[in-house]
Amino acid sequence: MARFNLKTSTPKELKEVLQRPAQKASDIMGIVTPIIESVKQRGDVALIEYAEKFDKAVGLKSAVLSAPFPPELMQLPQETIDAIDLSFENIRKFHEGQKEAGTLVVETMPGVRCSRFVRPIERVGLYIPGGTAVLPSTALMLGVPALVAGCKKIIFTSPPRKDGSLTPEIVYVAHKVGAEAIVLAGGAQAVAALAYGTETVPKVDKILGPGNQFVTAGKMFVSNDTGAGVSIDMPAGPSEVLVVADAEANPAFVASDLLSQAEHGVDSQVILITVGLTEEQLVAIEEELEKQALALPRVDIVRGSISHSVTLQTDNIEEAIELSNQYAPEHLILQIKDAAKAVDLVQHAGSVFIGHWTPESVGDYSAGVNHSLPTYGYARQYSGVNLSTYVKHLTSSELTEQGLRNVGGAVMQLAKVEELEAHRRAVGIRLEWLDSRK
Amino acid sequence: MARFNLKTSTPKELKEVLQRPAQKASDIMGIVTPIIESVKQRGDVALIEYAEKFDKAVGLKSAVLSAPFPPELMQLPQETIDAIDLSFENIRKFHEGQKEAGTLVVETMPGVRCSRFVRPIERVGLYIPGGTAVLPSTALMLGVPALVAGCKKIIFTSPPRKDGSLTPEIVYVAHKVGAEAIVLAGGAQAVAALAYGTETVPKVDKILGPGNQFVTAGKMFVSNDTGAGVSIDMPAGPSEVLVVADAEANPAFVASDLLSQAEHGVDSQVILITVGLTEEQLVAIEEELEKQALALPRVDIVRGSISHSVTLQTDNIEEAIELSNQYAPEHLILQIKDAAKAVDLVQHAGSVFIGHWTPESVGDYSAGVNHSLPTYGYARQYSGVNLSTYVKHLTSSELTEQGLRNVGGAVMQLAKVEELEAHRRAVGIRLEWLDSRK
Repeated sequence: MARFNLKTSTPKELKEVLQRPAQKASDIMGIVTPIIESVKQRGDVALIEYAEKFDKAVGLKSAVLSAPFPPELMQLPQETIDAIDLSFENIRKFHEGQKEAGTLVVETMPGVRCSRFVRPIERVGLYIPGGTAVLPSTALMLGVPALVAGCKKIIFTSPPRKDGSLTPEIVYVAHKVGAEAIVLAGGAQAVAALAYGTETVPKVDKILGPGNQFVTAGKMFVSNDTGAGVSIDMPAGPSEVLVVADAEANPAFVASDLLSQAEHGVDSQVILITVGLTEEQLVAIEEELEKQALALPRVDIVRGSISHSVTLQTDNIEEAIELSNQYAPEHLILQIKDAAKAVDLVQHAGSVFIGHWTPESVGDYSAGVNHSLPTYGYARQYSGVNLSTYVKHLTSSELTEQGLRNVGGAVMQLAKVEELEAHRRAVGIRLEWLDSRK
Repeated sequence: MARFNLKTSTPKELKEVLQRPAQKASDIMGIVTPIIESVKQRGDVALIEYAEKFDKAVGLKSAVLSAPFPPELMQLPQETIDAIDLSFENIRKFHEGQKEAGTLVVETMPGVRCSRFVRPIERVGLYIPGGTAVLPSTALMLGVPALVAGCKKIIFTSPPRKDGSLTPEIVYVAHKVGAEAIVLAGGAQAVAALAYGTETVPKVDKILGPGNQFVTAGKMFVSNDTGAGVSIDMPAGPSEVLVVADAEANPAFVASDLLSQAEHGVDSQVILITVGLTEEQLVAIEEELEKQALALPRVDIVRGSISHSVTLQTDNIEEAIELSNQYAPEHLILQIKDAAKAVDLVQHAGSVFIGHWTPESVGDYSAGVNHSLPTYGYARQYSGVNLSTYVKHLTSSELTEQGLRNVGGAVMQLAKVEELEAHRRAVGIRLEWLDSRK
């Protein structure tokens, strides 16, 4: 990993070092647009054709597997069931804790009651990547909060395996969160099916989940189409980790966290910020990195992502967190003295992992926090998936006669300034009525 | 207004009646893309050129007016100052009430602490339409929650008037909410300046505010550009109201609320749902509509929007709210008996106005609720602007040694299923270390 020292690097250099590689939008849109149109026009037939073409799936009879799911499609080793059940329960508890305490009521003036309350988004579509990868964790992270939020209709979509089946882990999680159906589709075609509906796929209100560039482009397309009437979770980009380590950090633990991220893909971003480390301590981490990497099955991927990763050397935790805030990492790991206190300084990050016993992987799977997080610096303005991702806030106002008298003058004056006479009269006509009744 | 009766209309007919007119995306993108590129490349020079070209503004020396704003630029009649101050205070109180009580902590298992906490979005750009219209209310609705949320940098943008100045109402509100600067620009050029920054315009993290099709297309463009790193509030469409009225409703009040919406523009959507009204009661509303419309300065606009508006006749409140939920209106006005109770049935709406003394215009200006709301059916999945629009949720996890022991097995099993060996080892290496210490 290339090293940079805060003392000897210029702000411009540091800015460049923390710059993410540009995402090529290229002509992906040109590829996904006809796919989306085809699903819109031809529905299930198109879905099955694409599953055969892109996923090389054979023997698909239907584009959808509907609940109740047959037990034989979710046969799993007991230790996998236990691991899913434990993770489900922790994720459920944490997201349950995020429920709001009911309607907020504020009387802004005597007789002027303003309220805010929550309603679940009715129908959500959850994209679970598949194919060669088996990703029960994504199914849990997207499905459990939907269940907790009270979404009425939960639809999974996941590309089928070559034999036309779904991985049993996905079916089991779909069953646990009460999903109504699993669409056997991936890519932009899956997104289109959820956005517009087909003969068997119900149209949804919001589409969530990670995916490759075709999925991302598909989500962008449908979220920009008012005819679809669908929203999405957040922009997607390569996964990232930023580890802050001081002299108390165990070099082996630091290296293992860097590698957890590095194994995701060659485009993974891995950044180490050291706080007051000596040359020996730095070398100790680098040696651990080398040693552990060589023992990994994905050593080639790891080599690729580590090659464009950097170490930034700082003198104190304030400097370190300032750099981290500048980068706005998806995952921020604090292996430092008094790590919990340093969280106060964190402004921009997806999720923070505090102390030596909290590797990122506990959050990826089972601790309870969500692993669906903003990448590519979008932690500056986006939250990771959480309970509020599945609900919306409505407001209401309710005025008494006295309330209308109290606020009516201001309303009428502002309507006059904005030259909206009917707005002014809607108040005026009521006040006149009240006065006439006296 | 065309009438439809729930008893005699088919569900298909009703669906068509409640269908909004298709939004033409057309080639707006082709128009705004070069404008955005130009601002990106040439900064302030481009902004000033566009202000001269599109806003016909003369004598612009700078693209930005920076705080502190000179008092002579915010000279206003006392009644306007009072109206703004009162509205400011009500909006502030209601959004202040939306602050979260601090960090949420859930111990999902012994030794596994998961937390969620809030950080303000650092830099927000607020688009205030201008030109011929004077819209202090939009400035209040977007600016006050930004102040309450603690956004560090609040930047307004608003097209200049022909003499190159800003309307004093906008400057006064900018001053009150602590805005750092007002960009004298409108359209896609204003959006580009906020998204990428110029010599004098600071780059922001999120852009909010209503606008014409060029503003909307500009927001769409920059929110899809990972190079910009900016988010937007929500898709924009023509304004809408749905009024539910029963026999207790005052026909004059109902008509005045329908007209408040109708005067916004010919593309405004106005829907009346009646509950158990007789022919005489229906005619009474229609006559009031006619009478009040003729007295309005914007009678031509009103005529246009009323021409494509409809009345839906229902027998009971359940039917009425079901239709309303199907439409998902931006504004929902309930002029019915026990209106507050009916809110329980409301699933999809931007903001609800309860009872005879709560015309929409009190919420548009001064009651305290926000008037920046989802249109075009997007109330199904979007909240209106509220405090959470200006913040993001971060999470953290902190495990003790025991916590890691409790959750580690599940993490390692799921990592094994997903074939992410480094994820598994990040836990394994720590557990081995703990075991070796015994």
